Amino acid sequence: MDSRTQESLTRDEVGSLISSSRVAGTEVYNRQGEHLGTIEHVMIDKHSGQVGYAVMAFGGFLGIGEKYHPLPWAVLDFDPAKGGYVVDLDKKTLEGAPYYGDTSDPYDWTDRGWRSRVDKYYQPYL
Amino acid sequence: MDSRTQESLTRDEVGSLISSSRVAGTEVYNRQGEHLGTIEHVMIDKHSGQVGYAVMAFGGFLGIGEKYHPLPWAVLDFDPAKGGYVVDLDKKTLEGAPYYGDTSDPYDWTDRGWRSRVDKYYQPYL
Repeated sequence: MDSRTQESLTRDEVGSLISSSRVAGTEVYNRQGEHLGTIEHVMIDKHSGQVGYAVMAFGGFLGIGEKYHPLPWAVLDFDPAKGGYVVDLDKKTLEGAPYYGDTSDPYDWTDRGWRSRVDKYYQPYL
Repeated sequence: MDSRTQESLTRDEVGSLISSSRVAGTEVYNRQGEHLGTIEHVMIDKHSGQVGYAVMAFGGFLGIGEKYHPLPWAVLDFDPAKGGYVVDLDKKTLEGAPYYGDTSDPYDWTDRGWRSRVDKYYQPYL
């Protein structure tokens, strides 16, 4: 829970609601307790307001060589004891998952092929 | 659209999806074109992933004396020409709306009374 004050917890994460600024920076672990990465931001459907994906930064050092993995919101379980998200994925599964990197061509969310590739990959883990 | 590069726009706001990091900092105007405030963060339902509220900072200077108004997501319309959100609210309506400040007691989202007060206030503007 790092250095956040009790007050900011009260403000940022209460009842069934959580602040986007609290989601960003939250650590992600697998069921084996391995640290997988850190949530960078979430992708929200502009019209419905539904969060589609949490984008997790994975690997790299100080932003160099990082890979960004979009995870469907539904694969993330918040574990209050860990203060982070737990996903039912091992590192190998993650390494095979769709991602984009700093240096790769910018991925294109308007490309339905990209989204359906992400959705299909995680279908068994929902 | 400030200094964001075309690439970051491509990455942050594409098709029907928008990044939470792009929503934060976005300006809010009313139909008369008056500047009302700036989105600070959004409140997301942890289980469903549905964005309930966008919290708008309003008034104040460098964070001092600011008021935070939660706006139901449904009152916000994104206007690509303005590069910001447009709401059908005048300043007076906003001044009468539920808010919390730096110095007030922290509001409590677990208090169903608070949420229903916000929801009820904006009901006519949805």
